[in-house]
Amino acid sequence: MDQRTPPDLLPISTEGMSGWNADNCPVRDVMSHIAGKWSTLILLALSERPYRFGELRRLVPDISQRMLTQTLRDLQRDGYVARAVFPTKPPSVEYSMTPLGRSLFQPLSRVMRWATENHEAIRLARMAFDRMGAAD
Amino acid sequence: MDQRTPPDLLPISTEGMSGWNADNCPVRDVMSHIAGKWSTLILLALSERPYRFGELRRLVPDISQRMLTQTLRDLQRDGYVARAVFPTKPPSVEYSMTPLGRSLFQPLSRVMRWATENHEAIRLARMAFDRMGAAD
Repeated sequence: MDQRTPPDLLPISTEGMSGWNADNCPVRDVMSHIAGKWSTLILLALSERPYRFGELRRLVPDISQRMLTQTLRDLQRDGYVARAVFPTKPPSVEYSMTPLGRSLFQPLSRVMRWATENHEAIRLARMAFDRMGAAD
Repeated sequence: MDQRTPPDLLPISTEGMSGWNADNCPVRDVMSHIAGKWSTLILLALSERPYRFGELRRLVPDISQRMLTQTLRDLQRDGYVARAVFPTKPPSVEYSMTPLGRSLFQPLSRVMRWATENHEAIRLARMAFDRMGAAD
């Protein structure tokens, strides 16, 4: 958790961007994973408390079982989510947010809030764009 | 740019999430667009100054012309980017960030900085996960 950049400076710049490619570009490598269709919602849920698989399934009714499994596995692989199995009968599996996940969720939740606050402006922009016909 | 929530409270919660579906969920609808493989990098560039198409192309060498066109069009459609044509010979096309885009970029750049600062931790988490074999 390197903190070299003072918080009030522009966090990052395009300087050195030309040295980035698909393999070593942190922005693409990290953003593309957390920005999956479901990742942010799952992170939002786990930011509040640990959840069992079935609970998450009910929370996001239009996610398929397979997609929820995949999303949780991806979040676990990136280190944001921990999976614990409890020896109940039947065994119960619980997902929780790791410290790394909490650290990510702090800035990410600001973007999520921005999204909810500005959803209408974005919808209006889309309608205006579509009315004009796609600009050539 | 609604500011009902005091900045120190958790920005959003899962409350009411079950009423969201793929069509009306702002988090998914907004995040999935800005989180495209290239959108964040293009927004990062335009946060610094307006760019011409060819300049953006050179800045992100591994983006195809077609993908850059599509990314810019999507960002324009969502209202983050404005496109201006100048009557030079040949005409030059310039892309710049709109006020809505700037407003988004503020929280988004924090996530981008987080990504660059924590890229190594994420890579280590992935390696550890892969060594263990995918958890069942």
